[in-house]
Amino acid sequence: MIQSYGYAAQSPTSNLAPWAFKRRDLADNDILIDILYCGVCHSDLHSIRDDWFPGMFPMVPGHEIVGRVAKIGNSVAKFAIGDLVGVGVMVDSCLECENCKNYQEQFCATGVQTYNAKGHDGQPVYGGYADNIVVREEFVLSVSEKLAPEAVAPLLCAGITTYSPLKNWKVGKGHKLAVVGLGGLGHMAVKFGIAFGAEVTVLSTSESKREDAKLLGAHHFVVTKDEEQIEKVKSSFDFILDTVSAKHDINQYLSLLNTNGVHICVGIPLESFEVSPFSLVAGNKALAGSGAGGLAQTQEMLDYCAEHNIVSDVEVIDIKDIHHAFERMEKGDVRYRFVIDMATIKN
Amino acid sequence: MIQSYGYAAQSPTSNLAPWAFKRRDLADNDILIDILYCGVCHSDLHSIRDDWFPGMFPMVPGHEIVGRVAKIGNSVAKFAIGDLVGVGVMVDSCLECENCKNYQEQFCATGVQTYNAKGHDGQPVYGGYADNIVVREEFVLSVSEKLAPEAVAPLLCAGITTYSPLKNWKVGKGHKLAVVGLGGLGHMAVKFGIAFGAEVTVLSTSESKREDAKLLGAHHFVVTKDEEQIEKVKSSFDFILDTVSAKHDINQYLSLLNTNGVHICVGIPLESFEVSPFSLVAGNKALAGSGAGGLAQTQEMLDYCAEHNIVSDVEVIDIKDIHHAFERMEKGDVRYRFVIDMATIKN
Repeated sequence: MIQSYGYAAQSPTSNLAPWAFKRRDLADNDILIDILYCGVCHSDLHSIRDDWFPGMFPMVPGHEIVGRVAKIGNSVAKFAIGDLVGVGVMVDSCLECENCKNYQEQFCATGVQTYNAKGHDGQPVYGGYADNIVVREEFVLSVSEKLAPEAVAPLLCAGITTYSPLKNWKVGKGHKLAVVGLGGLGHMAVKFGIAFGAEVTVLSTSESKREDAKLLGAHHFVVTKDEEQIEKVKSSFDFILDTVSAKHDINQYLSLLNTNGVHICVGIPLESFEVSPFSLVAGNKALAGSGAGGLAQTQEMLDYCAEHNIVSDVEVIDIKDIHHAFERMEKGDVRYRFVIDMATIKN
Repeated sequence: MIQSYGYAAQSPTSNLAPWAFKRRDLADNDILIDILYCGVCHSDLHSIRDDWFPGMFPMVPGHEIVGRVAKIGNSVAKFAIGDLVGVGVMVDSCLECENCKNYQEQFCATGVQTYNAKGHDGQPVYGGYADNIVVREEFVLSVSEKLAPEAVAPLLCAGITTYSPLKNWKVGKGHKLAVVGLGGLGHMAVKFGIAFGAEVTVLSTSESKREDAKLLGAHHFVVTKDEEQIEKVKSSFDFILDTVSAKHDINQYLSLLNTNGVHICVGIPLESFEVSPFSLVAGNKALAGSGAGGLAQTQEMLDYCAEHNIVSDVEVIDIKDIHHAFERMEKGDVRYRFVIDMATIKN
């Protein structure tokens, strides 16, 4: 077994705290990664607090992992020791079902999330708030040396989660795209939307994010609580990418879509959406969901980012400050993603 | 002014009854149509009862109209006296806005519904439960002599409302399509689905429609209240076309969609859909709406039906029996569309 040191929640009511644990020994197709950085995703907090469903404890969260290959199994051909690599929201799947064959391993019925799950060997898997991780070769992504690794880490979840729907719905030149929620996901959606050639508007409940939106390169900014501003963008957007995971009124956003427009949700509020059938039928509109992305598309996204110099805007933290970071994240006080410097775990 | 005889509701609480009224004199681009048949759409009943919004009374419903050209305005070039023609859910629009230019006149902000609306001259327009109608040339469709005109009438609403989303979402060979609700719209969805090459399953709350589904050519039939049957079709459909306008559980249907599947609603329940965000995000699914179809697509549908010998299954009625037909329609006791023989209005 391989020794790991991480930060774990021992129960849904306990804070994250240092924890020594074991990872499996390397199988022939496994890779041991020394973790350099791990992004802090809102779902890490949801998971350790059992917001969505009862979790498996102890739980080591973290699924925005960048590190270097420390050791490889006997059959690993894709990577060599020292390579810069990434791991996202999943670490295994059957690779044989229809979803896997269609490059949507994230929806494999026997897929294994990076943490808060059991591996195919029946043992719990632990995430990236740790000094190392063992991952099956196919689920390890190649990361370019051209980009700052700490700024790459959030691409593994926030990046692919916004890149994937924009690609799948073919958002690009000639499209008006609105982004709702200017956080870890939203700021990536703005960057990708601009890179793909769309005209990007940030929709926000408050005026306070106007300057931020501008700095990110958004073409327009609209305060959704200002009736005058909202009236001007009625029936105007081809796509809305909605990153908000708090309860919100979908019908208002549907009214901002042009004919044939699509509202894409990547956040997962706990409450159901209440959708007026008329809001969808009048104008042939759609409310879509999108969950992460497959392995091939994640690699494509990482390569695209390296080519176009796209990274996440990050605030690097000491792992001991994780709960302070969670508090600030919940208040939206982060531009735009906290990333743990894993060197701090040894201190 | 042109004399018309029709059946009108004088108020939301009164039954339809004979009514003599006037239509506008023909403008240069107008056509006078002697109505042969008019289909009975569920929205006719919703409209005269003010179910959706306060209506304009007296109201002559009817927007599935087939008739013959009786007279043409001076500039009409597309039609000649005696031509078999159709009129659907709209009789005017601006023909200049983005929606109109994109052949989606049904979503024009100044579009005029066939009844329960005011024309661009500010005068109320009356629908097809009448012996004649005056319609602007562009909104008159050409109907083939090859098909029985009474069976063509429902194509003007039920037909285009199901043809349009199947075409727009490119449903065809290799797709598994489920149809919910085997009524006026649903039976047309089954016919079009089969014609387009999809594998068609009818989903029904009760076993009683199994034989009907088979007779229409559906490949499979599933009773949604039978857990064993429903379990077998979980995550299996690429598209679900949902024609139900009563309240129903969308999340159950979303669970039957395969990855990337789309649930398309063409019915308009009065209550909001309650949609679990997770149902959409897990599997990149979408809940879409679709409203009727534009003029060009409606003509395309009529031509397609003539070429492929597709019509609605109808029960022709005397207009005096309209309320009996409404009662049977509300109970789902019609296979599959009532059509008024307008010759009976003279009796």
